[in-house]
Amino acid sequence: MNYQELSQRIEQSGHGLCIGIDPDPAHFPEGVGGLREFCLGIIDSTADVAVAYKPNFAFFEALGRPGWDALDAVTELLRSLPQKPFLIADAKRGDIGNTAARYAEGILEVMGYDAITVAPYMGRDSVEPFLRPNKWVIGLGLTSNAGAADLQQLKLEDGRHLYEAVVDAYREWGSPENLMIVAGATRPEALGALRDRMPETFFLVPGIGAQGGSVADVMRHGAFRDRPGLGLLINASRSVLYASKGSDWKQAARKAATELAAEIRSARRH
Amino acid sequence: MNYQELSQRIEQSGHGLCIGIDPDPAHFPEGVGGLREFCLGIIDSTADVAVAYKPNFAFFEALGRPGWDALDAVTELLRSLPQKPFLIADAKRGDIGNTAARYAEGILEVMGYDAITVAPYMGRDSVEPFLRPNKWVIGLGLTSNAGAADLQQLKLEDGRHLYEAVVDAYREWGSPENLMIVAGATRPEALGALRDRMPETFFLVPGIGAQGGSVADVMRHGAFRDRPGLGLLINASRSVLYASKGSDWKQAARKAATELAAEIRSARRH
Repeated sequence: MNYQELSQRIEQSGHGLCIGIDPDPAHFPEGVGGLREFCLGIIDSTADVAVAYKPNFAFFEALGRPGWDALDAVTELLRSLPQKPFLIADAKRGDIGNTAARYAEGILEVMGYDAITVAPYMGRDSVEPFLRPNKWVIGLGLTSNAGAADLQQLKLEDGRHLYEAVVDAYREWGSPENLMIVAGATRPEALGALRDRMPETFFLVPGIGAQGGSVADVMRHGAFRDRPGLGLLINASRSVLYASKGSDWKQAARKAATELAAEIRSARRH
Repeated sequence: MNYQELSQRIEQSGHGLCIGIDPDPAHFPEGVGGLREFCLGIIDSTADVAVAYKPNFAFFEALGRPGWDALDAVTELLRSLPQKPFLIADAKRGDIGNTAARYAEGILEVMGYDAITVAPYMGRDSVEPFLRPNKWVIGLGLTSNAGAADLQQLKLEDGRHLYEAVVDAYREWGSPENLMIVAGATRPEALGALRDRMPETFFLVPGIGAQGGSVADVMRHGAFRDRPGLGLLINASRSVLYASKGSDWKQAARKAATELAAEIRSARRH
């Protein structure tokens, strides 16, 4: 999916809701037999709401082989949806050139994802192999977890924070047409500073809901300055996936996704 | 495997040779049918030389499901070797706490690896879930690729390079008993600076051979100051795996591994 198509998708839906597929058996509703059943249920019941899906590979890899079988089934379902959502592999890969090229091939070509999250620490040659036509790198910028402060906010000798230097590097390595960044909802002021640095770059924003970020703040600070409400994929995982532990879990997930989409639409207009 | 056991292993063998399993079909000897055959052949013919093995997950994931099947077979063979080598999952994972915990469970417990390479950018909560008894985090410190200069060598306002700040953070998050670092052979002076900062921490050193690092330099700058020749796992991948494209590929791999082990042993004594 290219920049124009993704922009249209967000424009038409009025939101850029991304549903993170982080299936944790400890939180499954009663009676759910496994990852596959849970994920397929969530996807089926939210497919006409979500603009994007983001399976978190860790939650599948945690189970070894059965987890990979489930990830395959999830990927296949996602690719077959008539709504053609934007598909993000949340795999946070990052390695040197020849290795990165292998990850890119496996995840973007063989599995067919539109985008992959990538860690920046190893530098340019760990990011470039993922840059290919109609595919996206989503580079870690400023993340939403507590540990983000440990390194990302270190001050450099030239006055920038590390995360600012990282996004400046991303701008050099890729373009708004093939690279977006992860910019957490839990630090809205920083989101604004990042938007000033990257006026046309899409942000994938985790940290809404369970992690405490506010949709209104994200919209105010993070959206494109000249096209209000655009430029954002806003991710929700736990608040949608685990909306109910009862037998109504699919309906509850659908309701949570629909309400969040409405909240984003409403925040766009303010 | 704990600190004492790993130290003994290196002491007894006289080297800390780690063989990186990066199976790239483009370089396979003629007649080799696939990843599984190639990897099992390499491991069989080097098992009484190598102290450690390091499968690079990217090269397996690149193929999707058949790749995972091959990784499973490789892992099973490695775990069944009578020599009980130290097993490193070169997966470069890094994610927030609940996700990192899932990767740790999958790779260290279900798959049974002793160690996993981890990227530091997301901070403390992305590393801590991997710290568990008799298991190891191998944090990226200063890597051996060209792109390492892009971010790792940035100067901080307090005068440290970023990679120095990263290893200082590792020292706070883990201990020499459960955390080692990746320190590339291609920058021997920096290896010495890292050794000064982390006198008792194991270094996993890539970059020998194909990437141009020298064993003698690595030994001189990187070994424990008070126990010459110790503290290092020295990785070779391409120079062993692709030592011959002919029908003698297994013997050639064995020869290359044996010669490199001898070179390390000899460098210890100088």
